[in-house]
Amino acid sequence: MTKRYAAEDLTVYATALFTAAGLAVEKAEMVGPLMVEADLMGHTTHGLQLVPAYLGALADGSMTAVGQPAVLSDRGPVVTWDGKRLSGVWLTASAIDLAVERARMYGTCTVAIRRAHHIACLAAFLERATRHGMMITLACSDPSVASVAPFGGTRATYTPDPIAVGIPTGGDPIMVDISASITTNGLTGRLYNEGRKLEHTWLLDAGGNSSNDPAVLFTDPPGTILPVGGLDHGHKGYGLALIVEALTQGFPGHGRADPPEGWGAGVWVQVQDPTAFAGMAGFTRQTDHLAEACRGNPPRPGVDKVRLPGDGALARKRAALADGVALYPGIAEALADWAGKLGVTVPSPR
Amino acid sequence: MTKRYAAEDLTVYATALFTAAGLAVEKAEMVGPLMVEADLMGHTTHGLQLVPAYLGALADGSMTAVGQPAVLSDRGPVVTWDGKRLSGVWLTASAIDLAVERARMYGTCTVAIRRAHHIACLAAFLERATRHGMMITLACSDPSVASVAPFGGTRATYTPDPIAVGIPTGGDPIMVDISASITTNGLTGRLYNEGRKLEHTWLLDAGGNSSNDPAVLFTDPPGTILPVGGLDHGHKGYGLALIVEALTQGFPGHGRADPPEGWGAGVWVQVQDPTAFAGMAGFTRQTDHLAEACRGNPPRPGVDKVRLPGDGALARKRAALADGVALYPGIAEALADWAGKLGVTVPSPR
Repeated sequence: MTKRYAAEDLTVYATALFTAAGLAVEKAEMVGPLMVEADLMGHTTHGLQLVPAYLGALADGSMTAVGQPAVLSDRGPVVTWDGKRLSGVWLTASAIDLAVERARMYGTCTVAIRRAHHIACLAAFLERATRHGMMITLACSDPSVASVAPFGGTRATYTPDPIAVGIPTGGDPIMVDISASITTNGLTGRLYNEGRKLEHTWLLDAGGNSSNDPAVLFTDPPGTILPVGGLDHGHKGYGLALIVEALTQGFPGHGRADPPEGWGAGVWVQVQDPTAFAGMAGFTRQTDHLAEACRGNPPRPGVDKVRLPGDGALARKRAALADGVALYPGIAEALADWAGKLGVTVPSPR
Repeated sequence: MTKRYAAEDLTVYATALFTAAGLAVEKAEMVGPLMVEADLMGHTTHGLQLVPAYLGALADGSMTAVGQPAVLSDRGPVVTWDGKRLSGVWLTASAIDLAVERARMYGTCTVAIRRAHHIACLAAFLERATRHGMMITLACSDPSVASVAPFGGTRATYTPDPIAVGIPTGGDPIMVDISASITTNGLTGRLYNEGRKLEHTWLLDAGGNSSNDPAVLFTDPPGTILPVGGLDHGHKGYGLALIVEALTQGFPGHGRADPPEGWGAGVWVQVQDPTAFAGMAGFTRQTDHLAEACRGNPPRPGVDKVRLPGDGALARKRAALADGVALYPGIAEALADWAGKLGVTVPSPR
């Protein structure tokens, strides 16, 4: 029987672990719930699974525990922060809150952040803006590592470079969360550790031959993850990656051209207020129509039903809130180790 | 021997054709050069090939020949226009010019346009912003037609939904121009007319079976173009399309939820000024580093050299400016027909 935990208990637990590890209370209270949010949505590689690594980063000082970002520029609708390696999850959530407030004033606001620590699950942030009727675009990259080659190349040059977008409708938001590579570091790492293969040949070995074995990413020199579109039309994913690299490193003015500072992120977040354009009703009339046309689309053979991005995550979240959260194997044990070290009470399954 | 024309002669020719067809002079003088620009870059389906259709649209009144867009909102960094079915190429170029000017003031500016006529080649607009050191993102969709189904579906629901991005560097800009579908209406239409097939199975027939034959798009009901990622990971292209639909129809407040008005576009253009973030030097230091890492990447077997998006187009443009422009078969003849009707002088090849 799978153990299930109350979401609220996990939130209290994660928050207590961060606080015990020295993360400032106001930060822990924002980060804890966002880590659980990822698990609620079913993004199990980017939620509580990351907490032990974050606690380790607080312990060794590679994640800054207290303080505020330095404001490098503030033009009203455009803001740039140096994140000073503070929690990327906290920085991103704070940037979204600021951008929502500013977008009410200016119609739009963009915050670029350099030197954030890792920001975890992009999808988990989207409702933070869409619940205010705002469209949000969030992108990040990690300039200290690389696992994807430009289309036609073989040397890892950048990260999967995700971009996530939350689109308000009259009902549930549409929540797109895609990377510029076919698969991610999180998934390939997990499969490698479990000795498993990918479903398709989404990788190149170091010699440039396609492969479905994540082990090719752990050779020396390493292989690479293919861009979206693969060998067939990978120039599309390549283009998307270049956009994300420019947004997340060009605008904050810090990235791969600088000495690596360890696990972290350049972040670019933009919020747009439909009321400053043609109005909220005009916006949701289009997005509702689009959502309906997709959900009601006749499926191709073998497909049960056409879904919108975010539909599955929101359904999983509702189920997890009602029935409890089943953690991915290994997560509860890893958290319990830290709870022991930090003197934090481990929650009981429901 | 292929006939080659001086770019300047083609520009004068296209401008004269538009003026003779009744397009206001200040508009013709912006649209003519942009049509030629697409051919210079090698985007031969989206340059002068479109001019006869545009002239037809001016003749039948489906493209508005004179006037200004209506300003639906203006919040400084956010502007919304009703394009009144004026030339989409002129509207887009005008919106970029306004956005560049506003971005100098606010750090960013976004213009959303409803009811533009067709906007032609997105890539041709990018240097209009990058030459001022600005990053530009340009997206469009045509709410009156549909050729792409949501991932897993079979009913055409939206257009290929292109998005193009110009990224300044210390040298040539990076110019990404991708659609959310694997291939485009322009290319499939051309191949269909020529009785040719696609290189790969980038289409679905109306029953949802994959195909490389553009004829499946012309059945009743029609088949569809697959999203980027194809049957393997087409949720990525699907997500990108939803983003473009929201930007180009949600923000302007006009789209598929409204009665079709004929060939045209919803447009969303955004300009961002690196000097308002962490500075131009900080921006290009990252983008130059990225460009270098891509161009210098060891190619995989069978690949000559890793290129950046835009490298090929800019090389073709330089060659065409030096050696003349070779028009795609059929274009010169179609233009000459209109020149005869409108009393415009046909240029001689060089």
